[in-house]
Amino acid sequence: MKLKVVSKILDANERIAQENRKIFDDKKIFVINLMSSPGAGKTSLLEQTIKGLKDFAKIGVIEGDITGTDDAIRIDALNVPVVQINTGGGCHLDASMIQETLMELPIDDINLLFIENVGNLVCPAEFYLGEDIKAMVLSITEGHDKPLKYPMMFQQSKAVVINKIDLAPYLDVDMEKIRRDILSLNPTVAKFEISCKTGQGINQWTEWIKTNCLCRKH
Amino acid sequence: MKLKVVSKILDANERIAQENRKIFDDKKIFVINLMSSPGAGKTSLLEQTIKGLKDFAKIGVIEGDITGTDDAIRIDALNVPVVQINTGGGCHLDASMIQETLMELPIDDINLLFIENVGNLVCPAEFYLGEDIKAMVLSITEGHDKPLKYPMMFQQSKAVVINKIDLAPYLDVDMEKIRRDILSLNPTVAKFEISCKTGQGINQWTEWIKTNCLCRKH
Repeated sequence: MKLKVVSKILDANERIAQENRKIFDDKKIFVINLMSSPGAGKTSLLEQTIKGLKDFAKIGVIEGDITGTDDAIRIDALNVPVVQINTGGGCHLDASMIQETLMELPIDDINLLFIENVGNLVCPAEFYLGEDIKAMVLSITEGHDKPLKYPMMFQQSKAVVINKIDLAPYLDVDMEKIRRDILSLNPTVAKFEISCKTGQGINQWTEWIKTNCLCRKH
Repeated sequence: MKLKVVSKILDANERIAQENRKIFDDKKIFVINLMSSPGAGKTSLLEQTIKGLKDFAKIGVIEGDITGTDDAIRIDALNVPVVQINTGGGCHLDASMIQETLMELPIDDINLLFIENVGNLVCPAEFYLGEDIKAMVLSITEGHDKPLKYPMMFQQSKAVVINKIDLAPYLDVDMEKIRRDILSLNPTVAKFEISCKTGQGINQWTEWIKTNCLCRKH
């Protein structure tokens, strides 16, 4: 009974996500759905990504949070169009939230849209929003057991950005296990090891977006 | 429509949680529902807590994870009865999962039960399991914006354990803001600043459990 209800909600979501997909295709917008645990560094990664890609793409951002506008304020400071969704308790974004929000963005002047999902390593991976790809951030401070404990998000993502590698000397974290377990779950994933704080590795990530996202679309 | 369905699920959960509550009262078991983001250090805190309280309490543990038995293996190594729940995708524990699991524990020989919830800073706070108190772990690596972004869990918890303070020198984290925001959300909360790695602050936490949990019950 419970399962049936959940599957009906997912069906409705899928239908609306397909409508979003059509809008993105019509407008030639490449869409990246960015997911992670709370505090892994999604907004910091977006800040660095925007700085790196500003001359190559017309970027827009949708920020998803339970409450507050902290993240949208950080993105707005970079002069990029941004809209904040507050889910009011909901632990993930769904396709209808995105559809309602699109009207608030200048979508004729965007060709690369980042959707920053609610900080949650579980549910966001289950909801298709109409995006081209899912990408995720894993902070090494979360420990090396995370890929095998939260496999779905690692399996669904086309790219995994491993963040906060500047902290590796101060942690008992087995980086080899992280790399191995991610590849065992998702052999074709693009993997980046970066520090949003020092800037290390950001360039490989932005180059990957240029090649795999922007060039695919235009 | 969606809201109505959710509220029915919550009603059913509440009813089963009350049944659990009666079992805990009958058996004189104090129950702590431990919550946090993925990788904040719930299992590490449990390991330290068990070491500190082993001579004072008869401890049992229920481990909640989407998949795998890593955490149960770590607890089992300390010779404490433990049962692993795998939610198979579910992002939180619910009361019926606890009820089914209780039969697997020697509940006549336990007076302090820890339930380690699924790593998620959102949904676990919404589901009463029959516990005496909710407690949560916040890792300072998640950043100082977390209390205001995920208010419900901070409001629902009787104790907030701020973990990984050994990493403070390497982070741009505003500890004063964390303390201030937690107290603004929950003025009567018990607050601990600890490092599971170095052992700093663990003693205050275990003393608090002795005074507020064990003594209340026996």
